[in-house]
Amino acid sequence: MSDASPDTPGRFAYEGLDRVLHEKARLGILTALAAHPEGLPFNDLKQLCALTDGNLSRHLDVLHQAGLLEVRKEFEGRRPKTTCLLTPQGRRRFREYLTQLEQVLRDAAAAEETAATRTAPESSSGWAPA
Amino acid sequence: MSDASPDTPGRFAYEGLDRVLHEKARLGILTALAAHPEGLPFNDLKQLCALTDGNLSRHLDVLHQAGLLEVRKEFEGRRPKTTCLLTPQGRRRFREYLTQLEQVLRDAAAAEETAATRTAPESSSGWAPA
Repeated sequence: MSDASPDTPGRFAYEGLDRVLHEKARLGILTALAAHPEGLPFNDLKQLCALTDGNLSRHLDVLHQAGLLEVRKEFEGRRPKTTCLLTPQGRRRFREYLTQLEQVLRDAAAAEETAATRTAPESSSGWAPA
Repeated sequence: MSDASPDTPGRFAYEGLDRVLHEKARLGILTALAAHPEGLPFNDLKQLCALTDGNLSRHLDVLHQAGLLEVRKEFEGRRPKTTCLLTPQGRRRFREYLTQLEQVLRDAAAAEETAATRTAPESSSGWAPA
């Protein structure tokens, strides 16, 4: 796949960009949790990702239902405490997702090179026929 | 931003991941068009991105309305020909988006390192108290 020509059918389909992980807010949540393997309290995660209570809850539900996230409810003294952390499956699938994301960036970098060689330089004072 | 600690509020909000560009199918379309600066006929783009006519049309509309895409309708003899290409603004905004995407990958790589240092090695035969 990585060596396929830019004219191969499906070359830019990026099937590996799983929508469960690719959604912008969830991508932030996953990266934050990956950086905190011991887990994060709900409120910390909310602040780190700049999400509202409702939005964060909704995205955590999606990740939980996909088996990527574990939600631990405990008591700290008499106060309930909710901690979110990645499951081993979540960590693995996030890594696979990132591999696909790297491919997108490699393709885009290759595309920039292609563009630079196929178009006339912008700094040129004249123009050349194709 | 890139040097912010993993505990800074909003650290994982990724505001620069514009939803217009981040959506999976549109990301494929943009990368395909970036690799073909002379533009691509509708049908070629459809095959490269493995999209249906309806889906591709819908995503092209979104990109066009955002000013990222130009659609040229010409005649080749008597046959109509539709060519899609990035506008200069589209190329610039795609580049900005990719910069943010690189940041996500850097954060994720840093997160992997953090995870590796904070958790006990999986290959360990025993376990260590925290």
